[in-house]
Amino acid sequence: MERFDKEPEQGGRMCWFTALVLAVQILGLSAVIMVAVWMGHFRGGFAWQSDPAKEFNFHPVFMVIGMIFLYSDGILAYRVFRNMKKLYIKVLHGMIHLGALIFSAVGLKAVFDSHNLAKNPIPNMYSLHSWMGIITVVLFGLQWLSGLTSFLFPGLSMGLKKQYMPHHVFWGIAILTMAGATALMGITEKALFMMKTFPENGSKIPVLDYSHKPPEGILMNCLGIVIVTLIALVIYIVTRPEYKREPSPDEEHIELVN
Amino acid sequence: MERFDKEPEQGGRMCWFTALVLAVQILGLSAVIMVAVWMGHFRGGFAWQSDPAKEFNFHPVFMVIGMIFLYSDGILAYRVFRNMKKLYIKVLHGMIHLGALIFSAVGLKAVFDSHNLAKNPIPNMYSLHSWMGIITVVLFGLQWLSGLTSFLFPGLSMGLKKQYMPHHVFWGIAILTMAGATALMGITEKALFMMKTFPENGSKIPVLDYSHKPPEGILMNCLGIVIVTLIALVIYIVTRPEYKREPSPDEEHIELVN
Repeated sequence: MERFDKEPEQGGRMCWFTALVLAVQILGLSAVIMVAVWMGHFRGGFAWQSDPAKEFNFHPVFMVIGMIFLYSDGILAYRVFRNMKKLYIKVLHGMIHLGALIFSAVGLKAVFDSHNLAKNPIPNMYSLHSWMGIITVVLFGLQWLSGLTSFLFPGLSMGLKKQYMPHHVFWGIAILTMAGATALMGITEKALFMMKTFPENGSKIPVLDYSHKPPEGILMNCLGIVIVTLIALVIYIVTRPEYKREPSPDEEHIELVN
Repeated sequence: MERFDKEPEQGGRMCWFTALVLAVQILGLSAVIMVAVWMGHFRGGFAWQSDPAKEFNFHPVFMVIGMIFLYSDGILAYRVFRNMKKLYIKVLHGMIHLGALIFSAVGLKAVFDSHNLAKNPIPNMYSLHSWMGIITVVLFGLQWLSGLTSFLFPGLSMGLKKQYMPHHVFWGIAILTMAGATALMGITEKALFMMKTFPENGSKIPVLDYSHKPPEGILMNCLGIVIVTLIALVIYIVTRPEYKREPSPDEEHIELVN
Protein backbone atom coordinates (compact mmCIF):
# COMPACT_ATOMS: atom_id res chain seq x y z
CA MET A 1 0.00 0.00 0.00
CA GLU A 2 1.34 3.41 -0.85
CA ARG A 3 1.42 6.39 1.47
CA PHE A 4 -1.10 9.16 0.89
CA ASP A 5 1.60 11.66 -0.06
CA LYS A 6 2.70 9.39 -2.89
CA GLU A 7 -0.78 8.92 -4.32
CA PRO A 8 -1.63 11.03 -7.35
CA GLU A 9 -5.25 11.45 -6.24
CA GLN A 10 -4.31 11.98 -2.58
CA GLY A 11 -5.67 15.54 -2.48
CA GLY A 12 -9.20 14.51 -3.42
CA ARG A 13 -9.11 11.51 -1.11
CA MET A 14 -8.00 13.46 1.94
CA CYS A 15 -10.52 16.17 1.09
CA TRP A 16 -13.29 13.54 1.31
CA PHE A 17 -11.77 12.19 4.49
CA THR A 18 -11.74 15.64 6.10
CA ALA A 19 -15.36 16.24 5.07
CA LEU A 20 -16.43 12.91 6.59
CA VAL A 21 -14.58 13.54 9.87
CA LEU A 22 -16.11 17.03 10.01
CA ALA A 23 -19.55 15.50 9.43
CA VAL A 24 -18.93 13.13 12.37
CA GLN A 25 -18.08 16.10 14.60
CA ILE A 26 -21.19 17.98 13.53
CA LEU A 27 -23.40 14.90 14.04
CA GLY A 28 -21.77 14.17 17.41
CA LEU A 29 -22.24 17.73 18.67
CA SER A 30 -25.80 17.74 17.31
CA ALA A 31 -26.59 14.53 19.21
CA VAL A 32 -25.22 16.00 22.45
CA ILE A 33 -27.14 19.26 21.98
CA MET A 34 -30.35 17.43 21.05
CA VAL A 35 -30.26 15.13 24.07
CA ALA A 36 -29.39 18.08 26.35
CA VAL A 37 -32.30 20.13 24.96
CA TRP A 38 -34.61 17.15 25.31
CA MET A 39 -33.70 16.61 28.97
CA GLY A 40 -33.02 20.23 29.90
CA HIS A 41 -35.92 21.91 28.14
CA PHE A 42 -38.65 19.27 27.68
CA ARG A 43 -37.96 17.04 30.71
CA GLY A 44 -37.49 19.64 33.42
CA GLY A 45 -33.73 20.03 33.63
CA PHE A 46 -31.06 18.52 35.85
CA ALA A 47 -30.39 17.82 39.51
CA TRP A 48 -28.29 15.32 41.46
CA GLN A 49 -29.48 13.09 44.33
CA SER A 50 -31.73 15.78 45.84
CA ASP A 51 -34.24 15.18 43.01
CA PRO A 52 -33.94 11.61 41.63
CA ALA A 53 -36.39 12.24 38.75
CA LYS A 54 -34.21 15.06 37.49
CA GLU A 55 -31.04 13.08 38.24
CA PHE A 56 -32.31 10.59 35.65
CA ASN A 57 -31.99 13.35 33.05
CA PHE A 58 -28.20 13.18 33.32
CA HIS A 59 -28.33 9.53 32.19
CA PRO A 60 -29.14 10.02 28.49
CA VAL A 61 -26.90 13.10 28.23
CA PHE A 62 -23.83 11.43 29.78
CA MET A 63 -24.31 8.17 27.87
CA VAL A 64 -24.52 10.03 24.53
CA ILE A 65 -21.42 12.09 25.40
CA GLY A 66 -19.49 9.01 26.58
CA MET A 67 -20.60 6.02 24.53
CA ILE A 68 -21.40 7.83 21.27
CA PHE A 69 -19.50 11.09 20.82
CA LEU A 70 -16.25 10.57 22.78
CA TYR A 71 -16.14 6.87 21.83
CA SER A 72 -16.43 7.78 18.14
CA ASP A 73 -13.67 10.36 18.37
CA GLY A 74 -11.51 7.89 20.28
CA ILE A 75 -11.85 5.44 17.39
CA LEU A 76 -11.07 8.15 14.83
CA ALA A 77 -7.91 9.37 16.63
CA TYR A 78 -5.68 7.02 14.58
CA ARG A 79 -7.09 8.36 11.32
CA VAL A 80 -7.24 12.06 12.25
CA PHE A 81 -3.80 12.41 13.87
CA ARG A 82 -2.15 10.24 11.25
CA ASN A 83 1.10 12.24 11.21
CA MET A 84 1.66 12.22 14.98
CA LYS A 85 4.18 9.86 16.60
CA LYS A 86 2.43 6.50 17.11
CA LEU A 87 2.95 6.37 20.88
CA TYR A 88 1.25 9.76 21.27
CA ILE A 89 -1.79 8.63 19.21
CA LYS A 90 -1.97 5.46 21.28
CA VAL A 91 -2.05 7.47 24.52
CA LEU A 92 -4.59 9.91 23.04
CA HIS A 93 -6.78 6.97 21.87
CA GLY A 94 -6.66 5.48 25.37
CA MET A 95 -7.32 8.82 27.11
CA ILE A 96 -10.36 9.70 24.99
CA HIS A 97 -11.80 6.25 25.68
CA LEU A 98 -11.03 6.65 29.38
CA GLY A 99 -13.05 9.88 29.27
CA ALA A 100 -15.83 7.97 27.51
CA LEU A 101 -15.76 5.32 30.24
CA ILE A 102 -15.93 7.93 33.03
CA PHE A 103 -18.91 9.71 31.43
CA SER A 104 -20.64 6.35 31.00
CA ALA A 105 -20.01 5.35 34.63
CA VAL A 106 -21.48 8.63 35.92
CA GLY A 107 -24.39 8.18 33.47
CA LEU A 108 -25.07 4.73 34.94
CA LYS A 109 -24.83 6.07 38.51
CA ALA A 110 -27.49 8.66 37.56
CA VAL A 111 -30.00 6.06 36.35
CA PHE A 112 -29.47 3.66 39.27
CA ASP A 113 -29.86 6.58 41.72
CA SER A 114 -33.02 7.75 39.97
CA HIS A 115 -34.51 4.27 40.47
CA ASN A 116 -33.23 3.55 44.00
CA LEU A 117 -33.76 7.01 45.53
CA ALA A 118 -37.30 7.50 44.15
CA LYS A 119 -40.05 7.76 46.77
CA ASN A 120 -41.34 4.40 45.52
CA PRO A 121 -38.16 2.74 44.26
CA ILE A 122 -38.26 1.47 40.66
CA PRO A 123 -36.82 -2.02 39.95
CA ASN A 124 -33.46 -2.11 38.16
CA MET A 125 -32.21 -4.19 35.26
CA TYR A 126 -35.44 -5.68 33.96
CA SER A 127 -35.56 -4.19 30.46
CA LEU A 128 -33.71 -5.22 27.32
CA HIS A 129 -32.26 -1.68 27.24
CA SER A 130 -30.69 -2.22 30.66
CA TRP A 131 -29.37 -5.69 29.77
CA MET A 132 -27.81 -4.49 26.52
CA GLY A 133 -26.47 -1.35 28.20
CA ILE A 134 -24.70 -3.23 30.97
CA ILE A 135 -23.27 -5.81 28.54
CA THR A 136 -22.01 -2.97 26.32
CA VAL A 137 -20.36 -0.95 29.10
CA VAL A 138 -18.76 -4.07 30.65
CA LEU A 139 -17.41 -5.13 27.24
CA PHE A 140 -16.10 -1.58 26.77
CA GLY A 141 -14.33 -1.70 30.15
CA LEU A 142 -12.76 -5.08 29.30
CA GLN A 143 -11.78 -3.85 25.84
CA TRP A 144 -10.13 -0.77 27.35
CA LEU A 145 -8.19 -2.84 29.89
CA SER A 146 -7.05 -5.44 27.39
CA GLY A 147 -6.09 -2.70 24.93
CA LEU A 148 -4.02 -0.96 27.61
CA THR A 149 -2.23 -4.11 28.77
CA SER A 150 -1.71 -5.48 25.25
CA PHE A 151 -0.60 -2.42 23.31
CA LEU A 152 0.67 0.10 25.87
CA PHE A 153 1.70 -1.27 29.24
CA PRO A 154 3.15 -3.83 29.82
CA GLY A 155 2.47 -4.71 26.16
CA LEU A 156 2.46 -8.04 24.35
CA SER A 157 5.11 -9.42 22.02
CA MET A 158 4.83 -8.22 18.42
CA GLY A 159 3.45 -11.60 17.35
CA LEU A 160 0.68 -11.60 19.94
CA LYS A 161 -0.13 -7.93 19.22
CA LYS A 162 -0.59 -8.88 15.58
CA GLN A 163 -2.93 -11.70 16.52
CA TYR A 164 -4.95 -9.57 18.90
CA MET A 165 -5.25 -6.41 16.76
CA PRO A 166 -8.07 -7.53 14.40
CA HIS A 167 -10.10 -8.63 17.43
CA HIS A 168 -9.51 -5.28 19.17
CA VAL A 169 -10.77 -3.53 16.02
CA PHE A 170 -13.77 -5.85 15.63
CA TRP A 171 -14.85 -5.44 19.25
CA GLY A 172 -14.27 -1.70 19.13
CA ILE A 173 -16.73 -1.38 16.28
CA ALA A 174 -19.12 -3.94 17.80
CA ILE A 175 -19.27 -2.04 21.10
CA LEU A 176 -20.00 1.26 19.33
CA THR A 177 -22.79 -0.41 17.36
CA MET A 178 -24.23 -1.98 20.51
CA ALA A 179 -24.07 1.42 22.23
CA GLY A 180 -26.05 2.88 19.34
CA ALA A 181 -28.69 0.15 19.50
CA THR A 182 -28.94 0.62 23.27
CA ALA A 183 -29.37 4.39 22.83
CA LEU A 184 -32.23 3.81 20.35
CA MET A 185 -33.91 1.48 22.85
CA GLY A 186 -33.40 4.09 25.57
CA ILE A 187 -35.13 6.74 23.45
CA THR A 188 -37.97 4.29 22.74
CA GLU A 189 -38.31 3.38 26.42
CA LYS A 190 -38.37 6.99 27.57
CA ALA A 191 -40.89 7.93 24.86
CA LEU A 192 -43.30 5.17 25.83
CA PHE A 193 -42.94 5.69 29.58
CA MET A 194 -43.84 9.33 28.98
CA MET A 195 -46.98 8.35 27.04
CA LYS A 196 -48.49 7.27 30.36
CA THR A 197 -47.81 8.60 33.84
CA PHE A 198 -46.89 5.85 36.25
CA PRO A 199 -48.62 7.09 39.40
CA GLU A 200 -47.71 3.92 41.32
CA ASN A 201 -44.10 5.06 41.13
CA GLY A 202 -44.94 8.48 42.56
CA SER A 203 -43.79 9.86 39.21
CA LYS A 204 -44.92 13.26 38.00
CA ILE A 205 -43.52 12.88 34.50
CA PRO A 206 -45.61 14.99 32.11
CA VAL A 207 -47.47 12.93 29.52
CA LEU A 208 -46.10 12.92 25.96
CA ASP A 209 -48.59 12.65 23.13
CA TYR A 210 -46.04 10.71 21.07
CA SER A 211 -48.54 9.31 18.57
CA HIS A 212 -49.52 12.80 17.38
CA LYS A 213 -45.93 13.75 16.54
CA PRO A 214 -45.35 16.62 19.00
CA PRO A 215 -42.06 18.63 18.75
CA GLU A 216 -40.56 16.56 21.59
CA GLY A 217 -41.37 13.31 19.77
CA ILE A 218 -39.84 14.60 16.53
CA LEU A 219 -36.72 15.74 18.44
CA MET A 220 -36.32 12.27 19.99
CA ASN A 221 -36.73 10.49 16.67
CA CYS A 222 -34.26 12.86 14.99
CA LEU A 223 -31.78 12.25 17.82
CA GLY A 224 -32.03 8.52 17.02
CA ILE A 225 -31.48 9.09 13.30
CA VAL A 226 -28.48 11.38 14.02
CA ILE A 227 -26.92 8.69 16.23
CA VAL A 228 -27.39 6.02 13.55
CA THR A 229 -25.92 8.26 10.83
CA LEU A 230 -22.96 9.17 13.04
CA ILE A 231 -22.13 5.53 13.81
CA ALA A 232 -22.51 4.47 10.17
CA LEU A 233 -20.11 7.27 9.13
CA VAL A 234 -17.53 6.37 11.80
CA ILE A 235 -17.60 2.71 10.75
CA TYR A 236 -17.36 3.71 7.08
CA ILE A 237 -14.30 5.87 7.78
CA VAL A 238 -12.43 3.25 9.82
CA THR A 239 -13.15 0.38 7.44
CA ARG A 240 -12.07 2.16 4.24
CA PRO A 241 -8.54 0.92 3.47
CA GLU A 242 -7.69 4.18 1.67
CA TYR A 243 -8.18 6.18 4.89
CA LYS A 244 -5.91 4.00 6.99
CA ARG A 245 -2.97 5.57 8.71
CA GLU A 246 0.32 4.44 7.17
CA PRO A 247 3.13 3.59 9.59
CA SER A 248 6.21 5.79 9.50
CA PRO A 249 9.15 3.83 8.05
CA ASP A 250 10.96 3.47 11.39
CA GLU A 251 8.08 2.15 13.48
CA GLU A 252 6.95 -1.34 14.40
CA HIS A 253 3.76 -1.93 12.52
CA ILE A 254 0.75 -4.18 12.96
CA GLU A 255 -1.37 -4.72 9.87
CA LEU A 256 -5.02 -4.08 10.72
CA VAL A 257 -6.17 -6.80 8.37
CA ASN A 258 -4.17 -9.95 9.08
CA MET B 1 -3.90 -14.76 -1.12
CA GLU B 2 -3.75 -18.53 -1.19
CA ARG B 3 -6.67 -20.86 -1.61
CA PHE B 4 -7.92 -22.78 1.42
CA ASP B 5 -6.93 -26.11 -0.06
CA LYS B 6 -3.33 -24.92 -0.27
CA GLU B 7 -3.16 -23.73 3.32
CA PRO B 8 -1.45 -26.04 5.78
CA GLU B 9 -3.84 -25.09 8.61
CA GLN B 10 -6.92 -25.12 6.35
CA GLY B 11 -8.56 -27.98 8.25
CA GLY B 12 -8.65 -26.12 11.56
CA ARG B 13 -9.72 -22.88 9.91
CA MET B 14 -12.62 -24.42 8.03
CA CYS B 15 -13.60 -26.34 11.14
CA TRP B 16 -13.98 -23.00 12.99
CA PHE B 17 -15.83 -21.57 10.03
CA THR B 18 -18.29 -24.47 10.00
CA ALA B 19 -18.86 -24.12 13.75
CA LEU B 20 -19.56 -20.39 13.38
CA VAL B 21 -21.99 -20.89 10.49
CA LEU B 22 -23.73 -23.63 12.48
CA ALA B 23 -23.98 -21.25 15.44
CA VAL B 24 -25.62 -18.65 13.17
CA GLN B 25 -28.21 -21.23 12.06
CA ILE B 26 -28.94 -22.23 15.65
CA LEU B 27 -29.24 -18.59 16.75
CA GLY B 28 -31.39 -17.73 13.73
CA LEU B 29 -33.78 -20.63 14.32
CA SER B 30 -33.85 -19.83 18.04
CA ALA B 31 -34.81 -16.22 17.28
CA VAL B 32 -37.64 -17.35 14.98
CA ILE B 33 -38.91 -19.90 17.53
CA MET B 34 -38.68 -17.38 20.39
CA VAL B 35 -40.60 -14.67 18.56
CA ALA B 36 -43.20 -17.23 17.41
CA VAL B 37 -43.66 -18.52 20.98
CA TRP B 38 -43.86 -14.94 22.27
CA MET B 39 -46.60 -13.99 19.79
CA GLY B 40 -48.29 -17.39 19.51
CA HIS B 41 -48.30 -18.41 23.16
CA PHE B 42 -48.06 -15.21 25.24
CA ARG B 43 -49.80 -12.75 22.90
CA GLY B 44 -52.82 -14.77 21.85
CA GLY B 45 -51.78 -16.23 18.50
CA PHE B 46 -52.32 -15.21 14.93
CA ALA B 47 -55.09 -14.03 12.62
CA TRP B 48 -55.29 -11.96 9.44
CA GLN B 49 -57.57 -8.93 8.82
CA SER B 50 -60.54 -10.44 10.69
CA ASP B 51 -58.74 -9.69 13.99
CA PRO B 52 -56.31 -6.74 13.60
CA ALA B 53 -54.83 -7.14 17.12
CA LYS B 54 -53.82 -10.72 16.29
CA GLU B 55 -52.76 -9.67 12.79
CA PHE B 56 -50.16 -7.50 14.51
CA ASN B 57 -48.59 -10.68 15.90
CA PHE B 58 -47.41 -11.64 12.41
CA HIS B 59 -45.36 -8.43 12.27
CA PRO B 60 -42.53 -9.37 14.67
CA VAL B 61 -42.44 -12.98 13.42
CA PHE B 62 -42.20 -12.06 9.72
CA MET B 63 -39.68 -9.26 10.31
CA VAL B 64 -37.38 -11.60 12.29
CA ILE B 65 -37.67 -14.30 9.60
CA GLY B 66 -37.08 -11.79 6.78
CA MET B 67 -34.74 -9.08 8.02
CA ILE B 68 -32.72 -11.16 10.49
CA PHE B 69 -32.66 -14.88 9.65
CA LEU B 70 -33.05 -15.01 5.85
CA TYR B 71 -31.05 -11.79 5.41
CA SER B 72 -28.17 -13.29 7.43
CA ASP B 73 -28.19 -16.49 5.42
CA GLY B 74 -28.34 -14.48 2.21
CA ILE B 75 -25.16 -12.68 3.25
CA LEU B 76 -23.45 -15.94 4.19
CA ALA B 77 -24.30 -17.69 0.88
CA TYR B 78 -20.98 -16.61 -0.70
CA ARG B 79 -19.02 -18.08 2.21
CA VAL B 80 -21.03 -21.28 2.69
CA PHE B 81 -21.34 -22.34 -0.96
CA ARG B 82 -17.77 -21.38 -1.74
CA ASN B 83 -17.21 -24.23 -4.18
CA MET B 84 -20.31 -23.63 -6.28
CA LYS B 85 -20.12 -21.87 -9.67
CA LYS B 86 -20.14 -18.13 -9.02
CA LEU B 87 -23.25 -17.40 -11.12
CA TYR B 88 -25.24 -19.95 -9.09
CA ILE B 89 -24.17 -18.39 -5.77
CA LYS B 90 -25.09 -14.96 -7.12
CA VAL B 91 -28.59 -16.15 -8.04
CA LEU B 92 -28.94 -17.93 -4.68
CA HIS B 93 -27.78 -14.76 -2.83
CA GLY B 94 -30.36 -12.70 -4.74
CA MET B 95 -33.15 -15.26 -4.23
CA ILE B 96 -32.64 -15.56 -0.46
CA HIS B 97 -32.70 -11.78 -0.18
CA LEU B 98 -35.81 -11.64 -2.36
CA GLY B 99 -37.42 -14.03 0.12
CA ALA B 100 -36.29 -11.76 2.95
CA LEU B 101 -37.86 -8.76 1.18
CA ILE B 102 -41.17 -10.59 0.66
CA PHE B 103 -41.39 -11.65 4.33
CA SER B 104 -40.58 -8.07 5.36
CA ALA B 105 -43.24 -6.61 3.06
CA VAL B 106 -45.92 -8.94 4.47
CA GLY B 107 -44.68 -8.12 7.98
CA LEU B 108 -45.13 -4.41 7.25
CA LYS B 109 -48.60 -5.02 5.79
CA ALA B 110 -49.52 -6.79 9.06
CA VAL B 111 -48.54 -3.86 11.28
CA PHE B 112 -50.19 -1.19 9.08
CA ASP B 113 -53.38 -3.29 8.95
CA SER B 114 -53.34 -3.76 12.72
CA HIS B 115 -53.24 0.03 13.13
CA ASN B 116 -55.66 1.00 10.36
CA LEU B 117 -58.26 -1.73 10.86
CA ALA B 118 -58.47 -1.36 14.67
CA LYS B 119 -61.85 -0.24 16.03
CA ASN B 120 -60.15 3.04 17.03
CA PRO B 121 -57.41 3.33 14.44
CA ILE B 122 -53.88 3.82 15.79
CA PRO B 123 -51.68 6.48 14.11
CA ASN B 124 -48.86 5.18 11.91
CA MET B 125 -45.21 6.15 11.62
CA TYR B 126 -44.77 8.25 14.73
CA SER B 127 -42.18 6.21 16.64
CA LEU B 128 -38.42 5.96 16.14
CA HIS B 129 -38.93 2.22 15.61
CA SER B 130 -41.23 2.93 12.65
CA TRP B 131 -38.90 5.57 11.18
CA MET B 132 -35.85 3.31 11.43
CA GLY B 133 -37.82 0.33 10.17
CA ILE B 134 -39.05 2.08 7.04
CA ILE B 135 -35.60 3.54 6.30
CA THR B 136 -34.07 0.07 6.72
CA VAL B 137 -36.56 -1.75 4.47
CA VAL B 138 -36.38 0.97 1.77
CA LEU B 139 -32.57 0.85 1.83
CA PHE B 140 -32.79 -2.95 1.57
CA GLY B 141 -35.09 -2.70 -1.45
CA LEU B 142 -32.75 -0.21 -3.14
CA GLN B 143 -29.72 -2.37 -2.28
CA TRP B 144 -31.42 -5.43 -3.78
CA LEU B 145 -32.32 -3.59 -6.98
CA SER B 146 -28.92 -2.02 -7.44
CA GLY B 147 -27.26 -5.37 -6.67
CA LEU B 148 -29.41 -7.08 -9.30
CA THR B 149 -28.83 -4.48 -12.02
CA SER B 150 -25.12 -4.08 -11.24
CA PHE B 151 -23.96 -7.65 -10.77
CA LEU B 152 -26.54 -9.87 -12.49
CA PHE B 153 -28.73 -8.25 -15.11
CA PRO B 154 -27.93 -6.19 -17.16
CA GLY B 155 -24.67 -5.89 -15.17
CA LEU B 156 -22.05 -3.17 -15.05
CA SER B 157 -18.63 -3.19 -16.65
CA MET B 158 -15.92 -4.93 -14.63
CA GLY B 159 -14.43 -1.57 -13.65
CA LEU B 160 -17.70 -0.19 -12.30
CA LYS B 161 -18.49 -3.50 -10.55
CA LYS B 162 -15.14 -3.20 -8.78
CA GLN B 163 -15.95 0.34 -7.68
CA TYR B 164 -19.42 -0.53 -6.48
CA MET B 165 -18.61 -3.80 -4.68
CA PRO B 166 -17.19 -2.37 -1.41
CA HIS B 167 -20.25 -0.12 -1.13
CA HIS B 168 -22.61 -3.05 -1.72
CA VAL B 169 -20.81 -4.94 1.07
CA PHE B 170 -20.81 -1.92 3.42
CA TRP B 171 -24.53 -1.26 2.92
CA GLY B 172 -25.36 -4.94 3.20
CA ILE B 173 -23.81 -5.05 6.67
CA ALA B 174 -25.22 -1.63 7.62
CA ILE B 175 -28.78 -2.68 6.70
CA LEU B 176 -28.49 -5.89 8.77
CA THR B 177 -27.24 -3.87 11.74
CA MET B 178 -30.05 -1.33 11.34
CA ALA B 179 -32.55 -4.20 11.15
CA GLY B 180 -31.16 -5.53 14.42
CA ALA B 181 -31.40 -2.13 16.15
CA THR B 182 -34.96 -1.74 14.84
CA ALA B 183 -35.88 -5.20 16.17
CA LEU B 184 -34.56 -4.28 19.63
CA MET B 185 -36.63 -1.08 19.57
CA GLY B 186 -39.64 -3.12 18.48
CA ILE B 187 -39.20 -5.48 21.45
CA THR B 188 -38.85 -2.48 23.77
CA GLU B 189 -41.92 -0.78 22.31
CA LYS B 190 -44.07 -3.89 22.60
CA ALA B 191 -42.87 -4.53 26.16
CA LEU B 192 -43.74 -1.04 27.32
CA PHE B 193 -47.07 -0.87 25.50
CA MET B 194 -47.97 -4.09 27.29
CA MET B 195 -47.08 -2.64 30.70
CA LYS B 196 -50.25 -0.53 30.47
CA THR B 197 -53.37 -1.28 28.53
CA PHE B 198 -54.28 1.48 26.13
CA PRO B 199 -58.07 1.42 26.51
CA GLU B 200 -58.45 4.51 24.30
CA ASN B 201 -57.42 2.30 21.39
CA GLY B 202 -60.09 -0.26 22.22
CA SER B 203 -57.21 -2.63 22.87
CA LYS B 204 -57.54 -5.61 25.17
CA ILE B 205 -53.82 -6.34 25.35
CA PRO B 206 -53.11 -8.18 28.59
CA VAL B 207 -50.85 -6.25 30.96
CA LEU B 208 -47.24 -7.37 31.28
CA ASP B 209 -45.56 -6.91 34.63
CA TYR B 210 -42.23 -6.31 32.87
CA SER B 211 -40.47 -4.73 35.87
CA HIS B 212 -40.86 -7.92 37.93
CA LYS B 213 -39.13 -10.07 35.30
CA PRO B 214 -41.97 -12.43 34.32
CA PRO B 215 -41.20 -15.34 31.93
CA GLU B 216 -42.54 -13.33 28.98
CA GLY B 217 -40.21 -10.43 29.83
CA ILE B 218 -37.21 -12.74 30.12
CA LEU B 219 -38.13 -14.38 26.80
CA MET B 220 -38.30 -10.95 25.08
CA ASN B 221 -34.96 -9.84 26.49
CA CYS B 222 -33.31 -13.15 25.51
CA LEU B 223 -34.74 -12.77 22.00
CA GLY B 224 -32.97 -9.39 21.82
CA ILE B 225 -29.67 -10.84 23.02
CA VAL B 226 -29.94 -13.75 20.54
CA ILE B 227 -30.52 -11.28 17.68
CA VAL B 228 -27.48 -9.19 18.71
CA THR B 229 -25.25 -12.26 19.02
CA LEU B 230 -26.43 -13.59 15.65
CA ILE B 231 -25.70 -10.31 13.86
CA ALA B 232 -22.30 -9.93 15.53
CA LEU B 233 -21.38 -13.47 14.41
CA VAL B 234 -22.54 -12.91 10.83
CA ILE B 235 -20.51 -9.69 10.60
CA TYR B 236 -17.50 -11.43 12.15
CA ILE B 237 -17.69 -14.25 9.59
CA VAL B 238 -18.03 -11.97 6.54
CA THR B 239 -15.29 -9.56 7.61
CA ARG B 240 -12.62 -12.19 8.38
CA PRO B 241 -10.32 -12.29 5.35
CA GLU B 242 -9.43 -15.95 6.00
CA TYR B 243 -13.06 -17.01 5.48
CA LYS B 244 -13.43 -15.24 2.14
CA ARG B 245 -14.39 -17.28 -0.86
CA GLU B 246 -11.51 -17.57 -3.34
CA PRO B 247 -12.39 -17.16 -7.03
CA SER B 248 -11.87 -20.16 -9.27
CA PRO B 249 -8.95 -19.52 -11.65
CA ASP B 250 -11.13 -19.08 -14.74
CA GLU B 251 -13.60 -16.55 -13.35
CA GLU B 252 -13.74 -12.78 -13.43
CA HIS B 253 -13.07 -11.61 -9.91
CA ILE B 254 -13.80 -8.51 -7.89
CA GLU B 255 -11.67 -7.98 -4.81
CA LEU B 256 -13.92 -7.27 -1.84
CA VAL B 257 -11.37 -4.88 -0.36
CA ASN B 258 -10.40 -2.36 -3.01
